[in-house]
Amino acid sequence: MIEEMGPRARAAARVLRGAGAEQRSAAIRAIAGRLRARAGAILAANADDVAKATRLVDRLRLDETRLEAIAAAVEAIAGLPDPLGAEIARWQRPNGLDFARVRTPIGVIGMIFESRPNVAADAAAICLRAGNALILRSGADALASCLAIGEAIAAGLEEAGLAADCVQIVPTADRAAVGALLAGLGGSIDLIIPRGGRSLVERVEAEARVPVLGHLEGICHAYVHASADPAMAREIVVNAKLRRVSVCGATETLLVDRDAAPALLPPIAAALIEAGCELRGDAESRALVAEIGIAEEADWTAEYLAPILAVRVVGGLDEAIAHIARYGSGHTDAIIAEDARAAERFLAEVDSAITLWNASTQFADGGEFGFGAEIGIATGRLHARGPVGPEQLTTFKYQVRGTGQIRP
Amino acid sequence: MIEEMGPRARAAARVLRGAGAEQRSAAIRAIAGRLRARAGAILAANADDVAKATRLVDRLRLDETRLEAIAAAVEAIAGLPDPLGAEIARWQRPNGLDFARVRTPIGVIGMIFESRPNVAADAAAICLRAGNALILRSGADALASCLAIGEAIAAGLEEAGLAADCVQIVPTADRAAVGALLAGLGGSIDLIIPRGGRSLVERVEAEARVPVLGHLEGICHAYVHASADPAMAREIVVNAKLRRVSVCGATETLLVDRDAAPALLPPIAAALIEAGCELRGDAESRALVAEIGIAEEADWTAEYLAPILAVRVVGGLDEAIAHIARYGSGHTDAIIAEDARAAERFLAEVDSAITLWNASTQFADGGEFGFGAEIGIATGRLHARGPVGPEQLTTFKYQVRGTGQIRP
Repeated sequence: MIEEMGPRARAAARVLRGAGAEQRSAAIRAIAGRLRARAGAILAANADDVAKATRLVDRLRLDETRLEAIAAAVEAIAGLPDPLGAEIARWQRPNGLDFARVRTPIGVIGMIFESRPNVAADAAAICLRAGNALILRSGADALASCLAIGEAIAAGLEEAGLAADCVQIVPTADRAAVGALLAGLGGSIDLIIPRGGRSLVERVEAEARVPVLGHLEGICHAYVHASADPAMAREIVVNAKLRRVSVCGATETLLVDRDAAPALLPPIAAALIEAGCELRGDAESRALVAEIGIAEEADWTAEYLAPILAVRVVGGLDEAIAHIARYGSGHTDAIIAEDARAAERFLAEVDSAITLWNASTQFADGGEFGFGAEIGIATGRLHARGPVGPEQLTTFKYQVRGTGQIRP
Repeated sequence: MIEEMGPRARAAARVLRGAGAEQRSAAIRAIAGRLRARAGAILAANADDVAKATRLVDRLRLDETRLEAIAAAVEAIAGLPDPLGAEIARWQRPNGLDFARVRTPIGVIGMIFESRPNVAADAAAICLRAGNALILRSGADALASCLAIGEAIAAGLEEAGLAADCVQIVPTADRAAVGALLAGLGGSIDLIIPRGGRSLVERVEAEARVPVLGHLEGICHAYVHASADPAMAREIVVNAKLRRVSVCGATETLLVDRDAAPALLPPIAAALIEAGCELRGDAESRALVAEIGIAEEADWTAEYLAPILAVRVVGGLDEAIAHIARYGSGHTDAIIAEDARAAERFLAEVDSAITLWNASTQFADGGEFGFGAEIGIATGRLHARGPVGPEQLTTFKYQVRGTGQIRP
């Protein structure tokens, strides 16, 4: 059955590529409407999922408020600027040839995700905004919810005159379906987006035969430079760690310059501890703050997604950059500093998708970047890095206009 | 031994990322100088390769003129604008955060190529221009030549104060080395660029565990619309097929509109035949031109790279677009037409890396695009399509500058 989804997606992608921005907006709006209209069925299916779930129930659970938020998010994507057809560059050559680099859809995207059912609606809307067909494979936990959301998506597509095949949900949680998607469904899939834990991402990296836009974990760092303003450092670190601990842009390791650590670290640690955060540090940090526990080697690569923070004292900018290069995941890293030269070196030399100066790592989010919506934060190096919104789900082609030129 | 090349390339890439544009230009110029200075050794090594070769000797053979052309091409790359550090986009958000999307190197590139030894020098210069370290794996035919060129590259790098590890040549033609590169040398390779025939590209697609910038064959089409100017159509088709038959942008299939075929096809066919081209066509084209032989189904997907052209009569624009979608390779396709609406539909709907209107498919070349140099023509859909020059061998990161912002 999954084998048939590929050619159907490919055919739908061909139609979508020709569909105008307005028809795709209408489809996204219609999907929002159908999500609202089918709230009863979706919440009933979600109740089944929640009843069967053994873990992560909060991420899985929908209620009327959350479903309305999903519909509103979909509706917002209908209002985003359409990326397709935009000229990224245009130039002429001395022989009179006119070159345009124009945005086009990628084609068919295969997305594999775990337990948040809202991802199905978000991903469908973002893919339609970018003119891509989508095949979604939900984890077992959220399957009933996703199939119910998928029925709303299909109804919305048809209301706008587009084929339901534009967005297909794999109807089983069979793990063999993941393998078929990763093999590309016989040449039908142009890009795989995995969104889940490390075991999923590793399976994708080992088995995928098609390009992957990886969404690895976020081992994000906040580095307090010796020149940092103490109050700003405290406020940013507390926000970067604790605003929401379960997002990939949450800071997991705090680095503090040795010269300023006696003055800077104790008030930051006190604020974190007061807010309920557990600290695990190296010997130097523990010598400064008695409440800090012992960090093992594994703490430097831990994505806690919890109110726990690893703490290390470093001997300056170079050591901070080296620590991040060794232990980080290339996601998001911040420096807090008044010294602009140090900050600019950090921004230039830390090789992560997102580098920040005097701002919280929790800004690692497509909405905060002004992209309107995102499907996740890409941690690979090719095609797109950082927040992946509609524009990042496009590619381009060249249109060359001549008047009879031949090549000498 | 190849296992050690990965970490060495990774270390070299870290240094290269911080090296300024001028030092990288100096290294590229020094490589050009060393290629000239070592002409004797390189030509002697090439003579060994040629003596052992069993096929493709012309592509393999170097002489003083060709080696000087290689050195001059390398020198030209030293003069190209440096892509690194350029701001691709910059914007502010209402909270005062300042976002910059800045070009950075990809990191370590693994290139696997067959018998043209000039590729080693070109690829090294383009990768250095983009700040990437390179591991090159030559086919057995060109190995001695490439190792001799590699010694010139190493000497040039060291002359400019950069490590020879920035460009490493795999010293054996062992096929296991290809497997090790495709597996990513233990996380040391960021991108694989295969440049060779279909069997290489298929092995890469089956075995690669790292991102691939594929360079598939060029099944390029020239489509003569009923509105075409007859003289322009004849001139473009002859050039597109015959200017150089061995390049990937050479036209392999001619499509002609049924309504105008009786008037347009005979003079085009006569010009091609007079220039020594063999034609293989469908029944309709053979009814119009007696000299056209029979095309089999395999002719529609043949990359002849020879003076042979497949010919087909089609029932208009839609049929031409459908033929290209079914048989083409997404490389380069041209329409010859006076009807601007038909041409614009072709440019919009043909989903190839390069689409042309009233110009020869032989313009599929980075130099003709104004990129200064290219490593090949990418036929995949992600990251880069079409000519791959220094800019296409970069990625980007975000630099976010704040004044203490935390996320509400």
